Amino acid sequence: MSGVGLPAVSARVRSLHAQMTIDEKLAQLVGYWVDQGHEVVAPMAGEMVTSTKYEDATVNGIGHLTRVYGTRPVDPVERASWLWAEQRRLREQTRLGIPAIVHEECLTGLAAWKAATFPTPLAWGAAFDPELTEELGHAIGRSMAELGIHQGLAPVLDVVMDPRWGRVDECISEDPYVVGTIGTAYVRGLQSAGVHATLKHFAGYSASQAGRNHAPVHMGRRRLQDIMLPPFEMAVRDGGVRSVMNSYAEIDGVPVASDPELLTGLLRDEWGFDGTVVADYFSVAFLHALHGVAADLGEAALLALRAGIDVELPTGDAFVDPLRERLGTDPQALADVDRAVLRVLSQKEELGLLDEDFSSPPTSVELDGPRMRELARRAAEESIVLLHNDGMLPLAEPRTIALIGPNADAAEALMGCYSFANHVLAHHPGTELGFEIPTVAEALHAELPHAVFVHERGCDVEDGDPTGIAAAVEAATRADVAVVVVGDRAGLFGRGTVGEGNDVDDLELPGAQRLLVESVVATGTPTVVVVISGRPYAIGWMLHGASAAGAVVQAFFPGEEGGPAIARVLSGATVPSGRLPVSLPRSAGAQPYTYLHPVLGGPTEITSADNTPALPFGHGLSYTTFTHEDLAAADAATDGAIIASVRVSNTGARTGTDVVQLYARDLVGSVTRPVAQLLAYQRVTLEPGGSATVTFTVPTSRLAFTGRDGRRIVEPGAVQLWVGPSCAQREAEALVQLTGPVRAITGDSPRMATATVSLLVAERR
Amino acid sequence: MSGVGLPAVSARVRSLHAQMTIDEKLAQLVGYWVDQGHEVVAPMAGEMVTSTKYEDATVNGIGHLTRVYGTRPVDPVERASWLWAEQRRLREQTRLGIPAIVHEECLTGLAAWKAATFPTPLAWGAAFDPELTEELGHAIGRSMAELGIHQGLAPVLDVVMDPRWGRVDECISEDPYVVGTIGTAYVRGLQSAGVHATLKHFAGYSASQAGRNHAPVHMGRRRLQDIMLPPFEMAVRDGGVRSVMNSYAEIDGVPVASDPELLTGLLRDEWGFDGTVVADYFSVAFLHALHGVAADLGEAALLALRAGIDVELPTGDAFVDPLRERLGTDPQALADVDRAVLRVLSQKEELGLLDEDFSSPPTSVELDGPRMRELARRAAEESIVLLHNDGMLPLAEPRTIALIGPNADAAEALMGCYSFANHVLAHHPGTELGFEIPTVAEALHAELPHAVFVHERGCDVEDGDPTGIAAAVEAATRADVAVVVVGDRAGLFGRGTVGEGNDVDDLELPGAQRLLVESVVATGTPTVVVVISGRPYAIGWMLHGASAAGAVVQAFFPGEEGGPAIARVLSGATVPSGRLPVSLPRSAGAQPYTYLHPVLGGPTEITSADNTPALPFGHGLSYTTFTHEDLAAADAATDGAIIASVRVSNTGARTGTDVVQLYARDLVGSVTRPVAQLLAYQRVTLEPGGSATVTFTVPTSRLAFTGRDGRRIVEPGAVQLWVGPSCAQREAEALVQLTGPVRAITGDSPRMATATVSLLVAERR
Repeated sequence: MSGVGLPAVSARVRSLHAQMTIDEKLAQLVGYWVDQGHEVVAPMAGEMVTSTKYEDATVNGIGHLTRVYGTRPVDPVERASWLWAEQRRLREQTRLGIPAIVHEECLTGLAAWKAATFPTPLAWGAAFDPELTEELGHAIGRSMAELGIHQGLAPVLDVVMDPRWGRVDECISEDPYVVGTIGTAYVRGLQSAGVHATLKHFAGYSASQAGRNHAPVHMGRRRLQDIMLPPFEMAVRDGGVRSVMNSYAEIDGVPVASDPELLTGLLRDEWGFDGTVVADYFSVAFLHALHGVAADLGEAALLALRAGIDVELPTGDAFVDPLRERLGTDPQALADVDRAVLRVLSQKEELGLLDEDFSSPPTSVELDGPRMRELARRAAEESIVLLHNDGMLPLAEPRTIALIGPNADAAEALMGCYSFANHVLAHHPGTELGFEIPTVAEALHAELPHAVFVHERGCDVEDGDPTGIAAAVEAATRADVAVVVVGDRAGLFGRGTVGEGNDVDDLELPGAQRLLVESVVATGTPTVVVVISGRPYAIGWMLHGASAAGAVVQAFFPGEEGGPAIARVLSGATVPSGRLPVSLPRSAGAQPYTYLHPVLGGPTEITSADNTPALPFGHGLSYTTFTHEDLAAADAATDGAIIASVRVSNTGARTGTDVVQLYARDLVGSVTRPVAQLLAYQRVTLEPGGSATVTFTVPTSRLAFTGRDGRRIVEPGAVQLWVGPSCAQREAEALVQLTGPVRAITGDSPRMATATVSLLVAERR
Repeated sequence: MSGVGLPAVSARVRSLHAQMTIDEKLAQLVGYWVDQGHEVVAPMAGEMVTSTKYEDATVNGIGHLTRVYGTRPVDPVERASWLWAEQRRLREQTRLGIPAIVHEECLTGLAAWKAATFPTPLAWGAAFDPELTEELGHAIGRSMAELGIHQGLAPVLDVVMDPRWGRVDECISEDPYVVGTIGTAYVRGLQSAGVHATLKHFAGYSASQAGRNHAPVHMGRRRLQDIMLPPFEMAVRDGGVRSVMNSYAEIDGVPVASDPELLTGLLRDEWGFDGTVVADYFSVAFLHALHGVAADLGEAALLALRAGIDVELPTGDAFVDPLRERLGTDPQALADVDRAVLRVLSQKEELGLLDEDFSSPPTSVELDGPRMRELARRAAEESIVLLHNDGMLPLAEPRTIALIGPNADAAEALMGCYSFANHVLAHHPGTELGFEIPTVAEALHAELPHAVFVHERGCDVEDGDPTGIAAAVEAATRADVAVVVVGDRAGLFGRGTVGEGNDVDDLELPGAQRLLVESVVATGTPTVVVVISGRPYAIGWMLHGASAAGAVVQAFFPGEEGGPAIARVLSGATVPSGRLPVSLPRSAGAQPYTYLHPVLGGPTEITSADNTPALPFGHGLSYTTFTHEDLAAADAATDGAIIASVRVSNTGARTGTDVVQLYARDLVGSVTRPVAQLLAYQRVTLEPGGSATVTFTVPTSRLAFTGRDGRRIVEPGAVQLWVGPSCAQREAEALVQLTGPVRAITGDSPRMATATVSLLVAERR
């Protein structure tokens, strides 16, 4: 057994391990899902329900308890009491007395009844604020720790590659560096509360063919290394993450769950990861049932274990009976089991589980207290993106407002597919949410107390019935302004318009919503469109041309304080500062697309198919204006850092926050290079007339790429730099030379850029 | 200099080479395009026009003369006289007296004025008839040889990967084996006339991102090896092709024009190719100008030459002055030049050029004689696919026919983008075509002399103006039947709806044509829709549901005899026998798609995005019916062959031709395997009541794939076999075991399946 990827195993763990029977070992490598089968919250959950009884599954101990809080609406404090009793039972009534790791989803907050629901990760990306994300991770982690949850199944570090995919709202950005910086911040936050984070989904999942869930991923090693993997490497090396979950995907024919090159060779041998690798739900069984690379569950288990999966989740379909039958006396397979068991035991020791006595379950837990609501509010406000504004925003106090659209008065429209409300509660109609989540309508009433509101739903999110549009048009005609709130409903596997399994081959707004917006705009009444969605839609038609709205606001599922945040943006109480973390697509047929394309990946005269996005990555307006001037940067050695400074000024009349974006283009490379790449970013708040100098220190490793020989290298040569309001606009430019020899990137090469901000002028009016 | 990839160089060539100055050598490595700049028949042709004068460019000799006949309408016999004089000039007035290789396009027939225009390659695929394709290649080659053309820039062996791409009509099929068998037949045919074929575009071009021309290709080595490369390997090893043209594409960041692994390591060292590699037009310069992997043209030249490109086409932008400046005394670069020169000289010797005296230019050439027209007719008839028929076809002699649609009376609608008419003559309005090409309308009048026709165009192919639809509806209302002929107009770079550079992000019929068809169908008059196109469109709506037509006929640009062929299919004089060589797509947003997908590449309950094609690969109806019974197959060794026999019977009332299709599924593999793969196919003509036993001998190497270690292997295990009317339907099934050890595929492994047909019963009525 190789020591690689094993933490320094303690004498205590070694001694425990030495006492274990094979059944006790296998039990540590699986989870048990007490509430399984209640709801469809995992792929093919119907087919995959295990028939093993809980009592039988835990007789030799158990590695994990699966989604104890997050499968059906159970009161968290009552459930904690049950859980503490179960952990005591494992301690006292199994031979070795090893408690279970309790894992839970926590993507938009803890997935438990009554817990706070924060903005979806795509909104974290839009906020471009790692510090805030770290706070958010810490707050989520604290409530999890209080409830006895040891491991959270977040963050998702898949780089957005195709907006047709249903899980885009769980991702942070189309830019790997934004994903890496914000994802690593979340890891740090969660783990600072004593809860292990889990990177999902290692790797390649988001690049599936035509954006279809679980479909094959077609890419070469270079694209995988240069676009998909950097966020994971950052979270492993810089974030010290303790767990990683495999991707369901196959990449070029090899299912990741069976790929030792990724799960062991890269993750452990090269990056030095020494935590546990847990299986995405049912993905071990899928090696047999869906991928067809194993003849039965036993072979699937051997393949997964050999590749580097330590723990089968959510239950032990393959790693218990089928694996035991296949193990025989195969020394390699037995060694693989031992390696995984040592990792799980070490994780339990590290978490303090081996010493806990579970005598005092919590009697109350703060799941949505004032500090959480304040965080939820900040995250929502920072993430809202003003896409377009002909001057009608902020709303001058209007007398009458026609409030239209299926998302205007819908709390569920504000939450992502992994929120407890949309993931689980949707199956329990009549069950109260358990926390406050004002709708846009409720918040706008409160924000504009003197306005008269007329409400017309207009149409549904999904069903396409246009009969309500006439009444909406009538209401708009009579109002001073119309506010139309459209977008998605998050759900899973055919329930909803976005979320896990809800992939599309069309990027128009779902149902009759485009017709609703066009009809309202056609009245001539000044119209604001608010899109609350989980993916970017092809809404170029509402940004310019005959059906252009007066203003368009994009909110990616903004969470429990999203309604008030949107209302304050509309009123002007909040100056919008979000930026698009993804390109706003032109059409479904123009996909896949990424702004990180070489020349020939963008519009050229060689193709009639223009794929220019409706709006570029990084775009977002404000109620004030910013200029970027005097970009200065010096040449740097290939093993050095580019120091680049730029002056940003608030030239408008409101205090506002800019996201200063530094882009680069490597002009000539030994392989093709993208026409734009975000090198670094920094939020800067300035008063009217205020200026600041932002100085970025960008390690040249940020410009590394996979060379012809497969190594990641930095090449000498000219690099264009610019700062601008999006990837597509250059406001201040500079040209630097990278000098010196070609440099190979090593493990300790810096991955993060840093920024310092010096305030130059702070004029007050 | 390595001898690999060099033919046995003769003493004469060595001696010639030994006398050459560097300028004379470089001159042999480039072409000159006498008529360049006249028309846009190459990407960025405007920007890339060379300023070098012909006289200067040829002072040291010249490697190739580029598109002497195919750039503008010149009388071929007159042009031949010019050409013979030029060749004499090169012989007599250059120091070494080496004539030029004359190359020309010949994809749908020789691209020259007045020459026969055959069906487009996608129609060859639909005919599933390699023997016919070989005859066609030979006929084309003969007229080329008579005109002094030595090399034809065909066939295109790119496997169709995305119907959004504009060049789909130049390709043969979405199945690599169909491409390989039919493409190799074309090579054999052309070369049997003494003209060197050129495989295009090696490799990967057709899999560009979102189907956009020249856009990056994202795929791993396995997909490249298992899907894209087999046709090229077959044409090299089995077809003995003499030239290969590189792909414009980058694959995973590496432009193929700069990739020695593909152009030398695979093509020459592994496959043993010893002909010339010629550059796709301007692709050497594009390494600098578009791909950005070279700082200037000299570096681009060095990269291309080192990678294995021997000849720069169409002109010497990079390989003459820029290369000379970069060469210096670099021994490796000089050796690269020498290697390429020896290849070119050897090709000239092989072609007999070194011995020709060019004393007798042809005084007449048969460019479209009776034998060619007969071949054109057969190819057109065999390629027409009857997609749908509620019984209205063949047409019972109707009294009145409303003949509707923009392609009903348009000769240019019958020809592909590389036909001389659409490639070149489109720039010369008023110039006569120079050969007969009856339109559908003309042919249908002749075919149904007793019918009364009313003609209404209805709408244009492209412009979307629906105002003519009312008149078409009126005509249909009054007629016994309506025949609506819709589809594409082939062109290049923004001219036309399909063809090189004419990519789309939408797969609806162009312009107002869907509305036209729906409006005519809505009249209730029995309606036949004929789609004449260069790509498969998303026309599921006309096959079933409220707007289903009575019958739908698909013709992929069927050439000069396409009009009569369509008319005969409609009348019933010809029983249709074509089969879809590509899936009929569901939508643009469901792309890319291939029928060769693993389980998770097809519809599953894990995704809401159903990508099931509107009609599957292999589908095609007839005016008779066929059954397939008693599939029998024995187990085979991994290094053996599967012998599979099936009885096919004509159970209908007409003599007809079936395409017997044998499919396989490898149930468990070490990597994921497709749910269906065409193993072999055979056209069989049967009289009513007739039966035949088709026995396929399928080398197990047809089931080879790239294993985890990168080698192509055949694994033991169970393989499902079936025969049916498409890849999606199983009519007769069998299960065989491959036995023995895992077998690695070597160079002499058979690539072709063979079929024998034994007639069992031949009942005559």
